Order: sequence, then structure tokens, then C-alpha cells
Amino acid sequence: MQNSPFSALFEPIQIGPVRAKNRFYQTPHCNGMGALRPDAHARMRGIKAEGGWGVVNTANCSVHPSSDLLPEVLQTLWDDGDIPVLAKMVEAVHEHDALAGVQLAYSTYYNGNRFTREVPLGPMSRPVSGYQPVQVRGMDKEDIRNLLGWWAAASKRAMKAGFDIINVDSNFSTIAFQFLSPRNQRTDEYGGSLLNRTRLLRELIEVTRDATQGQCAISVRLIIDELCGANGLRAHEEGIEAIGMLAELPDLWDLVVGTWADDSPSSRFAAENDHEPFMIGIKSVTTKPVVGVGRFTSPDTMAGLLRRGVLDMVGAARPSIADPFLPNKIREGRYEDIRECIGCNICVSSHFAMTNLRCTQNPTMGEEWRRGWHPEYIAAKRSNDAVLVVGAGPAGLECARALGQRGYNVTLAERGTQLGGRVTREGEQLPGLREWLRVRDWRITQLHKMQNVGIYMDSNLCVQDILEFGAAHVVLATGSTWRADGVGRAADRPIPHDNTVKILTPDQIMDGELPADGPVLVYDDDHYYMGSVIAEKLAKAGHSVTLATPAAEISAFTANTLELSRVTRRLDEAGVHMLTHSVLGKISGERALLVHVHTAKAHEIHVATIVMVTARLPNEQLYYDLKEEAKGNIDGGIKSVGRIGDCLAPAAIFQAVYTGHKYAREFEESEEHVAMKRERIQLQEV
Amino acid sequence: MQNSPFSALFEPIQIGPVRAKNRFYQTPHCNGMGALRPDAHARMRGIKAEGGWGVVNTANCSVHPSSDLLPEVLQTLWDDGDIPVLAKMVEAVHEHDALAGVQLAYSTYYNGNRFTREVPLGPMSRPVSGYQPVQVRGMDKEDIRNLLGWWAAASKRAMKAGFDIINVDSNFSTIAFQFLSPRNQRTDEYGGSLLNRTRLLRELIEVTRDATQGQCAISVRLIIDELCGANGLRAHEEGIEAIGMLAELPDLWDLVVGTWADDSPSSRFAAENDHEPFMIGIKSVTTKPVVGVGRFTSPDTMAGLLRRGVLDMVGAARPSIADPFLPNKIREGRYEDIRECIGCNICVSSHFAMTNLRCTQNPTMGEEWRRGWHPEYIAAKRSNDAVLVVGAGPAGLECARALGQRGYNVTLAERGTQLGGRVTREGEQLPGLREWLRVRDWRITQLHKMQNVGIYMDSNLCVQDILEFGAAHVVLATGSTWRADGVGRAADRPIPHDNTVKILTPDQIMDGELPADGPVLVYDDDHYYMGSVIAEKLAKAGHSVTLATPAAEISAFTANTLELSRVTRRLDEAGVHMLTHSVLGKISGERALLVHVHTAKAHEIHVATIVMVTARLPNEQLYYDLKEEAKGNIDGGIKSVGRIGDCLAPAAIFQAVYTGHKYAREFEESEEHVAMKRERIQLQEV
Repeated sequence: MQNSPFSALFEPIQIGPVRAKNRFYQTPHCNGMGALRPDAHARMRGIKAEGGWGVVNTANCSVHPSSDLLPEVLQTLWDDGDIPVLAKMVEAVHEHDALAGVQLAYSTYYNGNRFTREVPLGPMSRPVSGYQPVQVRGMDKEDIRNLLGWWAAASKRAMKAGFDIINVDSNFSTIAFQFLSPRNQRTDEYGGSLLNRTRLLRELIEVTRDATQGQCAISVRLIIDELCGANGLRAHEEGIEAIGMLAELPDLWDLVVGTWADDSPSSRFAAENDHEPFMIGIKSVTTKPVVGVGRFTSPDTMAGLLRRGVLDMVGAARPSIADPFLPNKIREGRYEDIRECIGCNICVSSHFAMTNLRCTQNPTMGEEWRRGWHPEYIAAKRSNDAVLVVGAGPAGLECARALGQRGYNVTLAERGTQLGGRVTREGEQLPGLREWLRVRDWRITQLHKMQNVGIYMDSNLCVQDILEFGAAHVVLATGSTWRADGVGRAADRPIPHDNTVKILTPDQIMDGELPADGPVLVYDDDHYYMGSVIAEKLAKAGHSVTLATPAAEISAFTANTLELSRVTRRLDEAGVHMLTHSVLGKISGERALLVHVHTAKAHEIHVATIVMVTARLPNEQLYYDLKEEAKGNIDGGIKSVGRIGDCLAPAAIFQAVYTGHKYAREFEESEEHVAMKRERIQLQEV
Repeated sequence: MQNSPFSALFEPIQIGPVRAKNRFYQTPHCNGMGALRPDAHARMRGIKAEGGWGVVNTANCSVHPSSDLLPEVLQTLWDDGDIPVLAKMVEAVHEHDALAGVQLAYSTYYNGNRFTREVPLGPMSRPVSGYQPVQVRGMDKEDIRNLLGWWAAASKRAMKAGFDIINVDSNFSTIAFQFLSPRNQRTDEYGGSLLNRTRLLRELIEVTRDATQGQCAISVRLIIDELCGANGLRAHEEGIEAIGMLAELPDLWDLVVGTWADDSPSSRFAAENDHEPFMIGIKSVTTKPVVGVGRFTSPDTMAGLLRRGVLDMVGAARPSIADPFLPNKIREGRYEDIRECIGCNICVSSHFAMTNLRCTQNPTMGEEWRRGWHPEYIAAKRSNDAVLVVGAGPAGLECARALGQRGYNVTLAERGTQLGGRVTREGEQLPGLREWLRVRDWRITQLHKMQNVGIYMDSNLCVQDILEFGAAHVVLATGSTWRADGVGRAADRPIPHDNTVKILTPDQIMDGELPADGPVLVYDDDHYYMGSVIAEKLAKAGHSVTLATPAAEISAFTANTLELSRVTRRLDEAGVHMLTHSVLGKISGERALLVHVHTAKAHEIHVATIVMVTARLPNEQLYYDLKEEAKGNIDGGIKSVGRIGDCLAPAAIFQAVYTGHKYAREFEESEEHVAMKRERIQLQEV
């Protein structure tokens, strides 16, 4: 390591009373496990520590029932009963010589306190976000005194749980930040001047210090720029000045920008290290270590930030999810083994689904405890049986890779001339998805290292070919095909049309087929990215494009990947006309009939081409034919026929990787071995 | 009871091998407690049994991990570990001589299986609802065989848990119904003819029968009309015919219509007993008991349905939430004591918030276990101190009532000449909210029975009046006032305007103030009902009305009360022009500038009047003045000053009733006594 260009990343660093072994700081992140799934949470964090992260933090940990973000799955330190849940994580992190941090938070404006029904508190009287019919009460002095008391009590509990670092969260949705923001218009000593607006944050740091008596380091996670111009805090006006005012009070500064959507943009909208411009100058106002984020996966970028004196530690949430072993891999010089985050933000969607974190690149994420999956290790093979994987899309690649890792003799047969399947097609043919190719590239790199996996291109196998090939086990990863008939969520039956309009599917667009002359309608009843990237592509190619969708938002699912606003903005900039609440009723005489989802009012638009982005059908014929053949041919040598990925059931790429991995994990294992563990509630007295 | 017009409601009835003591059937309903909060769930159901319901059912209970509706909080019988959770409920129900039923369900189209990540199954390949990038796999014969096996195993577990009745759920989102619907277009023996489409339901009933061997009754909850015309099942075409085909197979038929939104419409859109037209003729095709619902709160309606031979048992979910003791109150002839459901559907919103059920009328709902609140009983007073409640809105009425029930000497002072506060104003002045007056009326009825509560109208008390009154404790329930400045969710600061437009608030509309001549803009940044009912009222009065909102839907929160589609439809019918995604930027020269939330594109509309429906400010001055006065005057006799309802923090009416009740429950009780119990997760091994 000493001669490595990245050795600076492995120098220890003092954080107040504690010392981190290196510069890898896993920033707080949601994970859908939290207090509701404490064993799963502890195991996931422990694996981060095992993978080399010097500091491993929790997600948002509420200090009091009046800061209740339920049903979001986070942490709480409301009473001593919460201590064992977090102590479990601390143990798991300490086992690997890492520091454990807890993100203490008191939320405001975002919490309707739906579970506890406590009155939400905040700087000013205002409705809470999310349309709940609940308002925040503007805090009076008694409320502020209470808050400081709750904070001190939670800090003590955190110390009892064994945490090394207590984070005073001043993120967007927190009380500390909402006092600090110029949007705070209080007229007392907690509003007005920047000094007044930083008062609450200062007091929170002080009560944490008092409560922990030098036993824990204190970090502050702060927004330095709200990215909303003069309406909010700006780094180079008050943001850095605020840090200067509190410069030496905490032991570490962990800095972020804007809302969650601003801070964690997807790769479709932002590249690695997009925060750096906001971080310039921070280190001139404080001597304390500074942490920043930026979806860092490149060791060069990370080392550069340290070398240029921008940061002291590299913060990461998403890259640590995609590869919990990222630090170790850099230390060991295994750069090509880093499973780089693709920036799809499907991880974020798990938080909104309040279920275990998932990751497109890392199928073991969220499964560490309940399925016993480790991101780096896998059980050895149980037999010498050969496996034929048909189709080298994301599911096939991952299945072959994981079976290969187990030591099986694997053949991966791809019908086409490229590996990657839909990942390759989408990443190369559609705008903004280029980083998704990492799903393919990492797997190809790994597969090429394996002697026991053979890859065959241009192999369009039929049943007879497969039987003749003679593998004991066959797994079909033959993907899916976009429907042209309009069946989807809004339509159970094909949409009537009279052939006056050219109908295209996303597959045809990716194959290079062109729309007819005249206006194009992209009909999006899929609601993830496909409708919008096709509309963007066609608009940029000069077509007049309308995107219509039955949903109330364009690309409605992308609310869960923090992309929603940006999608509409980008399409608007590209000149795409957008219609929400619109169901495609029928197509006749070069006109599309659009029906309003609520009022059922209809109107027609002139179209020459409709791109149907509604649903897919699994390419399952080979599976059923093979099953049939294998049934009558039990001596023919085929012991099992499986299916994975979109062939099993069309879904997003993360699910294809997951089902491919799952097949490999469970292959030849007993049912008991593969059973999923579940959390249980303690029954108390009625 | 024998001479009562309602005695038929109390005749026992045989349901297969078991016997219900009366005709009150608590249909399955969501409650936000379920398997995640099993003690709370058991206690809630137990209280229903105590209140006289002859049959008490669970909510949706999933039979297999591939039917995973998480994060919705429901029940599961996936393995034997789930049995104790449900056994606890069964015990609580049996304790009061009621029958316990479990709603076994296998979901389709609605479940993305986000927690378990299993592939969702259904009649046909189709995306799941809710925009998740996941598709259902069309089931093959092996899938159907598996399903029947899972169902049988879950039935056995249900029997072990002690249930008397097993319900084969064939509700909208279930596999049984989606096979039965004509939208099923399978071409095998499970699709096509009605006989084929009922095949799966028949098989599910049969496996349940086989698994339980006559020990449990079997009910079927079935949709008889999808309310979507020829696209779906219609009662008088195939719906009743389907029941005829399976007529004697189950032991009871529990019948519903359409989606949840159709089946449980709010009182704004449907009156009591709106399902009856669909139920006519059912009893001519089966001899088994028939249950139907219709938000029944009137004993006359219930008895009439039995007398006319439409139903054998009256089903109820919402009325049993508003008053768990409804059957006992009818039996005892205490008709005026029935706390009638107001049909606001705030109960449904708790399900979508995945938190304990709440109810506007019954503040104890969901609090039975965790706070030890019983809907009928309350602890006796702890002292002879007198309490003055200032303000007779929903919070003040409930607080006075509950304190009165405890035996305290209470004075309720109302500034105006009517009781009910905002409930009276909204219920009487705004369209569609008339049933909400029940919140006021029930409380007035109860208060009038109490000798220890005095009610004074026309009492606009100032600090001095209160001090002179001399009550030891003062509770302020002085409500809130709608802001005119536009501050709300979208605007932190007042919206700039040049006084060329008349600005009105909802308060002024309810006071009878009229818009200026010319177009009216209702600006809705509140997102619940207020914006839409004002738009409706003004449009019906002949004004040209535009409703603009920053949200993607009109009255966005009403998605949680199942009213969303109907709101837009009604406004459209009333001629209201609607604009979504629109933030009001400024008002000048009789024009309102509307800015798109995503693209920031602006456009102007001509307006003469703007009704600002954005946020409210608590009427808290009296509270702070009194606190200040009481502080310097500790010998003056005031021991405490409290605040409840919108004065504490503006919110919906359910929260006002709740905070009023909570004050009364906790008044003079120890902190330990009022502490909220919480569920805990069992820590297992890492």
C-alpha cells in the first residue's frame, strides 16, 4: 500500500476522542431494515465494516416520539428499550475494527407523526409535507428546552449502545437545519441573523458534548447549499460562514447539499463528484476533518479530493451499498473487482417501499441476515454437475458468475454477438443510461477470470441443441419482449386500432427502427424510465413527440429514485409535450383517443406513430418446450430446467440480477438451507 | 329485547359448524396494527367482541410469501411462527363469546412482493399496480397446484390458531377474483366460460374444506359487481350466477362491490346502504347466510335488510370502528348513544400510513392496547378540581365530555352561539360534509346527560374573565384561522400581491363573504377536502372557478380516503377548471402567476378573486397570554393551562377529537400511567 497512489486513503485519522483506521466514511443511509429489522440491519452494517469502511453510520435515528417518520423504517432512541437494537449494530461494526456512528435526528416539516400522533414541532407554524392534514407547531421556548433535553437523553442512550461517534444531523428535514435556513423567519433570538439561526445547532452540539462527556466524537451532518437560490441557504453566502461560526465545536463535518434528490442524483442526471464545487473553501474555516459525498467509485477521484485538500475523508452511501468491500479492494489493488454503483437509485426506492435495501449491482444487499448471503463469499458447489445458462443478459451473467464462483462447470450461451442483453441495448441505445453498462462490465471481468465458465456467443439454441449439449441443468435467461398491443396497467385487453398509425415498441426503437413522418406519441403505461428516455431520444432526433401517461406524473415510479422532477424538466427542455392522467382508448384514422383517468372525458390527437411502452411478455416458450421435452425424457440427462430474470417475470434490472444470483445461491441446496429468516414481534400482555 | 323492533338482529345464526350469537358481523378490515402490532390488534378486536359483534374478522391474511403486500400492515400465515400472533386475537375475541374469522388471501396485481422479492403470480402476465417495475407471471398449472397447497397449509395454521371461520377472500386484489373476472382472458380450463373462471375459487373452497375437516366454517368474501360496466363482472349478468354455481359450497357469503374505493365510499359521495341494489336476488340462489355492508349505523336500516330478506347478517367495518359497542347499544335500547360513523374515511388513511387505525368519532381506536384506552370506560377523576374548557369545537366538546365522564366538574365556554366550532361551520356551510355534524351531535347528546358539565354560549372570554372564573385548570380549544397570505407547503413566505385581486380565506367563505365579480381562483396548497368543497360551492353558485394546486392530483390527500377520483369527477361536473402542478408565484394586475412545480415554466391567468386554501394559524394568543399571567400569579388559583385541537396545532378533525380526548385521559395522571407502550422486535442471532 505504501507505494500505492491511494495510500493516503488508508492513513488513520483522529476524530475527537476516537481514531478511524482509514478515510472511508460510510455516511448515514436509509436501508429499509433499521429498527424494524435489527438483525438484518446489524449484519449489513457489520459487512460494511468487514469490507474496510473506517466509519459506519446508522440511518436517521429519531430522538423523540414527536419526531416520528413512521412508516419509514429508520432508527429510534426514544427510550432505553431501543438501546439493544443499536448495540447489536455497534458490536457488528466493532468486530471489524471500524468506528460506529449514530445519526441523531429530530425531524421537522416532513414528519406527520402518524404513528405516535404527537404534535410535530418546527421553527414556524406550517403544514407538514406529503399532503397529510397535519401542521407543525411553531416552537416556543419551552418546546426548545424540551428538545434539548430529549436530545441529551438520546445522546446518553447512544453512548450506552456503544457508539463512537454521535452525529448531530442537520440535514434537510431536521430541526437544526430548518432553523439555520433563511426560510426560518422567527423574530426571536432563534431567527433573523445567521448567528441566531445557528443557535439551535450550536446548542444541540453543546448538549451532546455535555451528555457524552468526551467519550464520543461528535460529527455534524450539514447542508451547505439548498440549491434553491435566494430562497434557501447558499454555500458561498451563508453556508460556509455558518460552518465558520461553529468551526471547532464538532469533531468532524459531514457535508451535503440540498434535498435528498439534490444530494443523491441518479447517474442519468449527474456524474461522480458533482458536489465538489460546493466544498471548495470549507477547509479554510475549520481545522476539523471534513467529509463529503459524490457517489465516489473511482480511487483516483477519492485520492484526488484528499490530495487537493478538499476533503479529509471520502463519504459514501451508494458506493458502499454496491460494494461493501470497496475499501479493501482498493487496499489490495483489486481495482477491477470494485462493483461500481451505477447510480440507478433503486436503493432509494427500497426506502420508500419500507422494505430491505436492494441494489442492482449487489444482489446480496438486504439479504445478508435473512438469507445468509455475503457479498464476497458463497458456498462451494455440491456436485460436479454441469450447468447451461441460456442468455447473457444481467440475469444470465450474474447466474453464471455466481455458479462459477461456487466452482460449478458453467456454460453461458448467448444468442447474439454481444453480452449484456437488455443492459447493453438500453445503455448503448438510450440517452442517460450509459453507467448502467457497469452491470455487464463488472460481471464480464469476473467471468473472464474463471476457468470453469465457458462463454459462447452467436448461440441461438433450440430445444434439440440444448438436449444435445447434455448439461445436467439448464437455466433459461432468455429475457422478455415489449408488447405492441397496449396491454398494461390501464388496459387488460389489446387497445383497438385500425392500422392507420405505425406502432413501435421499445425493442424496435433500440433496434433502430424509425417512426413514420409526422407526430409521435409515446404512450407510457410502464411509468419507470423507458417512456421518458424514448421520448427524449426521439425528440432530440427531431421528432415532434407527445408523451401521454395514465399516471398523474411523468415517469411516476421515478419519485422513488429521486428523479421525478428532473425527468419532466429534461423532457420539457427537449421539447416533449406531456399529458398526464391520459389513458389511450383507441387508435383510428391517424388519431389517438385519450381518456382522462378520473373524468373519463376524451380528446383526440393526431399521430403518425405510437411507441407503446406498457408491458413486456417473458420469452418463455423455450422454457415450456424444454420442460415438456425433459418430462418425457427423464433419462435424457436433464435433471432440472430453471428460469431467471425477465424470462421468469419481467421486472427492472435489479430483479434480473437478483433472480440470477438467487438461482445460483440456492442451486442444489436444501429447502431448509435457503429458507428466508424473518423478524418476529415480541408478544406482550394484552 | 323480545318486543324490540330490532330483536331479529339478536337471533343466533348457524354458520356451518359454528353458531353466531347474533347478526352483527364485523367484516375484515385493515387497521395498521396487524402482524406488526399483534398485541394492539388483539386488544382492538377483543373490544369489538366485548361490544357485541357476533363475528369478528381479521384483515387480509396472506397465505404465502409470494402474496406480499408489505409495507401494508396486514396479517400473514406463512409459517407456524405466525400462529401465536393470530391465536392472541382469537383468544381476545372468544373471551366475549364471539366467533373469530380469518380472511385468507392470496393477492395478485396489487402486490409487488417488495419485501420477499418473490415473483408475483396471477391469471395473466401483467405489470403490478402502483407503478413498481415488477410484473406478475401468468400462472401455469404447476403454479396453481402450488397455490392450492399453500392455501391448504395456511388453512391448517388458521385452524391451529383457533379460528372459527375461515374466509376465502375473493376481493378485488385477490387471485380468486381476478380469475373470476371477465378480465381474465386465459384460454385454458381456468379462463373463458364463467364455469372455468369460477374453477379456482371452487378449488380454494374445496382445499379449505379438506384442510379443516369440518372444524371451521368457511365463508367467501366475493365481489359481485366490479362497477366498470362490460369491462368487469356485473351482478345481474354473471355475478349472481357465479354465486349460484358455488351456492352451497361455503357456509356463508360475504358480498362486496368493486374496488375498495367503490366498496367504502365516503359520506361525501354515498349514503348509508348504497350496496342494496346489488344484493337483490342473492338469497334466491343460495340457502347459506348472506352478509352485506353499507356503512350501517341505523338500527332501522339493519333490521329492514333482515326483514326484507336481503341479508341474514349485517356486515360492518367502519361503523364498528366508530363504535365498537354498537350492537350492545342497540340491544340495550341506547340508540342515541351510538357513535355513528361519519364516513370521512380517515380510518382508511391510517392503513395507507401503515400506522394504527384512527377514527374521527372514536379517538380510542388504535389506542386500546398501547395507551390502555377503552371506548366506553375511562378512569375516575383524581381530584375535585374544576376545569374550564374554552371553545366548543370538536376538541373542546370531546375534552369536556371525557372529563365529564371521569366525574370532573367541567365548564365549557363557547364564544359563539352554536356548539361544534369548525364541524358546525364546515358541515353546514360546505357541500357534502353534512354527516360530519355527527361529531358534534353525539357529543352534545352525551354532554346533556351530565350533571357535572355546564355549557355556556356567547362567552367570549379574555384573560381577566378566565382568571376571575377561578377554575383550577384551563384548557384552550380556541381553534385556528385560515391564513390569507398564501404561506403553506409551497411557499415559506407570503405570496407577493398588489391588491388588485380580492383575497378570501375558507373562513370568510364560511362566513358568507362573496367573491368579486369575475373569475375565481381557488388555490389549494392544503390538499385535503377544503379546496375542492369551496370550488364546488362557488361553481354551483354560478362563479367561474379555477382550482390550481402544486400537487399532481386535485385534493391529493384524498387518495388516502378513497375519494380522489370522485373529487375530480365532481368538480369537472360542476364546471370547475382544474390545474395541477401549479404553484402560485405572485398576484398582480388582476392576474395570478402560476409556476409549474417541475419545469418552473410560468403562465398567467386572469382572476378577480383568489381563495387561499393553504394553511392555518392556531388561535394561540389567549394561551400565551394566560400562561404569562398564570406564571406571575401562581397563587391566583390557576394550576395549569393546556391547549388542544387546532389551537395546539391545526390538523384534521380526527386529530382535534383525539387531542381533546387525550387531554382528558391524561389529566392529573402520572407520566408512567400515560406512557405509550410500543411493540418490540425479538433480537435473533446475527
